[in-house]
Amino acid sequence: MDIEALKTEIDGIRIEENPAVVKQKSRDFFWYSPVLKEQLDHITADIVVSPNDEAEVIRVLSACCRLGIPVTPRGTGTGNYGQAMPLSGGVILNLAEMSAVREIAPGRVVCEPGAVLAQIDRATRAHSGQELRLSPSTYQTASIGGFVAGGSGGIGSIRWGGLRDLGNILRLRVVTMEEEPRVLELTGEELHKVTHAYGTNGIITEVEMPLTAAYEWVDVIVGFESFMDAARYGNALARQDGILTKLISPIAAPAPFDYFKRHQKFLREGQSVCLVMVAPQSLDAFRAFTERAGGEVVFDAADAGPEETKGLPPVTELSWNHTTLRALRVDSAITYLQVLYPFPNQIDLVAKIHAMIPDEMIGHLEFVRFDGDITCFGLPMIRYSTAERLEEIIRLHEENGCPIFNPHRYTLEEGGMKQTDEVQLAFKREADPKGLLNPGKMIAWENPDYDYRSDKPFLFPRLQRAS
Amino acid sequence: MDIEALKTEIDGIRIEENPAVVKQKSRDFFWYSPVLKEQLDHITADIVVSPNDEAEVIRVLSACCRLGIPVTPRGTGTGNYGQAMPLSGGVILNLAEMSAVREIAPGRVVCEPGAVLAQIDRATRAHSGQELRLSPSTYQTASIGGFVAGGSGGIGSIRWGGLRDLGNILRLRVVTMEEEPRVLELTGEELHKVTHAYGTNGIITEVEMPLTAAYEWVDVIVGFESFMDAARYGNALARQDGILTKLISPIAAPAPFDYFKRHQKFLREGQSVCLVMVAPQSLDAFRAFTERAGGEVVFDAADAGPEETKGLPPVTELSWNHTTLRALRVDSAITYLQVLYPFPNQIDLVAKIHAMIPDEMIGHLEFVRFDGDITCFGLPMIRYSTAERLEEIIRLHEENGCPIFNPHRYTLEEGGMKQTDEVQLAFKREADPKGLLNPGKMIAWENPDYDYRSDKPFLFPRLQRAS
Repeated sequence: MDIEALKTEIDGIRIEENPAVVKQKSRDFFWYSPVLKEQLDHITADIVVSPNDEAEVIRVLSACCRLGIPVTPRGTGTGNYGQAMPLSGGVILNLAEMSAVREIAPGRVVCEPGAVLAQIDRATRAHSGQELRLSPSTYQTASIGGFVAGGSGGIGSIRWGGLRDLGNILRLRVVTMEEEPRVLELTGEELHKVTHAYGTNGIITEVEMPLTAAYEWVDVIVGFESFMDAARYGNALARQDGILTKLISPIAAPAPFDYFKRHQKFLREGQSVCLVMVAPQSLDAFRAFTERAGGEVVFDAADAGPEETKGLPPVTELSWNHTTLRALRVDSAITYLQVLYPFPNQIDLVAKIHAMIPDEMIGHLEFVRFDGDITCFGLPMIRYSTAERLEEIIRLHEENGCPIFNPHRYTLEEGGMKQTDEVQLAFKREADPKGLLNPGKMIAWENPDYDYRSDKPFLFPRLQRAS
Repeated sequence: MDIEALKTEIDGIRIEENPAVVKQKSRDFFWYSPVLKEQLDHITADIVVSPNDEAEVIRVLSACCRLGIPVTPRGTGTGNYGQAMPLSGGVILNLAEMSAVREIAPGRVVCEPGAVLAQIDRATRAHSGQELRLSPSTYQTASIGGFVAGGSGGIGSIRWGGLRDLGNILRLRVVTMEEEPRVLELTGEELHKVTHAYGTNGIITEVEMPLTAAYEWVDVIVGFESFMDAARYGNALARQDGILTKLISPIAAPAPFDYFKRHQKFLREGQSVCLVMVAPQSLDAFRAFTERAGGEVVFDAADAGPEETKGLPPVTELSWNHTTLRALRVDSAITYLQVLYPFPNQIDLVAKIHAMIPDEMIGHLEFVRFDGDITCFGLPMIRYSTAERLEEIIRLHEENGCPIFNPHRYTLEEGGMKQTDEVQLAFKREADPKGLLNPGKMIAWENPDYDYRSDKPFLFPRLQRAS
């Protein structure tokens, strides 16, 4: 890999070769998974390149294409599955410097891929009281390009579904990996080509996202005697069409008391909870509903005084992947899964699965709209013993009709639908004919004969060897 | 009925006794129903009283209570079931003069009951780019108080459900019908006491409603070969969580071509359609979805030139009860029903029912969120022959699991759930102990022994006799 030749070719563009920094920029939150931690801990790029604008991106891609150097794009590295990890080394294309918020209009924002979600919302709130529809729990640090390329939904999905749904991304500007890179504008049906493709088939240089009305969302925590009470409450609240919520997250004991340290003073040991973000104008209705449903409000930010809320993280940072993060900080043996509980049996399935795995699994649900219905994902915390037992737990879910989006795999297919995405594969043939973008992440490209029903994880042959 | 004594008591408050004007102010759109037309055509109040503020409302109610004079509140008279018709004469309390928009804040508006919906939206749009969540197709003329007291939902229900859902009304200020009227503020669970009670148990003097982001909604009409194609398309569109719509209304041939005269140039004879209002930021996604679904866009306001759109009514005025109105203008023998097609079988039920009644019924659906699910109401147009045949058609619906909200009845119960609403009845006992507010509309008050399962319409004994 002729990194020296590359440096000459891209002279004037910011680079970084300090091995410690390069290694740090080659990592994400893959270590949430003990499986990925073992497989990927040694991975590092050869060089980090930080373009300032699309013209520099084009120069880098052109040079790397000619020199046959792999390029792995990276936003701020908040992914959990090694999305931005350079499995065969080469260049980390650090897009964090391209962070401008370019244009705000009713219902729309245009920005560069490195813009951080919270930064975008600050700009759109100040401009016209608007905010993004969807964000991960890493809202304060995640970039919009990384979210579009490596995320799927999160806070706001109870109202808007996921990023894969038509309308939740408006336009992407994408540069191809060719000797003469092309710049494409994708809208409508074409967006799927590069959405959630981990940057394997194009580099996103501009993102247009829909906006919705911003409110001073109120954090509330509702306490329950049991996890299933919290789950049923969350399900019923999610189905209240007139109560505007942004987050509904039931979490089983002992997680709330044991892992949410700053909130411990509001909680009882052994208490399960439902985290809620509710719009201020829906508070009265929310409280009426909660009373009707027999929930006990243990924390309500609208009622809490400044001393009570001082130093408290927002409930967003107790939810989605942050739930697991807080558990990991207390107990490093915790890992997690990602489950879909299909509508309309979500509540029965949650009860059944959690009864089957009572001790190793701590329940955590996130209510969402999914294909037009209200249902829930699970992000259960798992007390990890062995990779085999983890596989067994996954099998128990799947045998009971609950698909797993496996967060212990670094490929698109194994973490997703376990089948070739023909649209994304075809676009890779067109936009990255040499297969240099984020190698090893798209099985369909690396090994067209791979059997998705085999129980064995895909092993990327050109995975960097541990030294 | 001592109207002269009343006039003395309320001296200084605006009144109207001209019989032609009083009769006009005693009517609504009850004549949509041939049944109600026959029953109620002669109804008239003795006097119209038009208070300017809550203090005048209190004076009127106090005087009427002492004198035993019935009081029927009226907004702008856009109801369809005689909601504001004074069955026993007395006073029409015309609240149209109390029309101030008092306060606008993020997510909220406070107004007087006579404020017209379009007027409220003009104020909230100008103030902060906000609009009401829900409105009837009579948006340009209906008052907010009348909508809350006599309506149920409409445009926007595909996103927010109905007025009966917690959170879709924030606060109501209500004056009781007592010698010393009390002023009550209702929020949360208590709102149900007077919501959709036709003013039978209190007079609304202030309304606080939730607001949502206003957009320059785009009117689109999608054409289909058959009504069921339009229905399936509407159902699938309604389930697109990322595409922001405000109206999804499939309407069967021959209605679009025959009844939507101004839009005829865009339509083919025999074409069924789906009317859609879509947010501008969702247009690309909407078009991609429509192409995927095989719909043919026959009118798209975002693409149409000024000559094409000149004089066209908005699609809102082709939808909900306006569909029937346009049919009636062309064919006075048309009437209608109101049906719920329960989730998840809505599409099969629509197909089944329409196949059973092929010639007399012209399909018209409105997609809504209902108790957390996406389903549709039907407002089928009916070629009216006899009251008996209409009853038979109603029976066919009910026998097949499709509840009818009968628009050919003037009572709350027969138009609604066909059972006593204990909360509203209890509140009437408290707030209108003499039973003077809008007499004859609440069966539970007039005849506690009434059998809702009898096939006979409730006949109010004190219904004014036709002269």
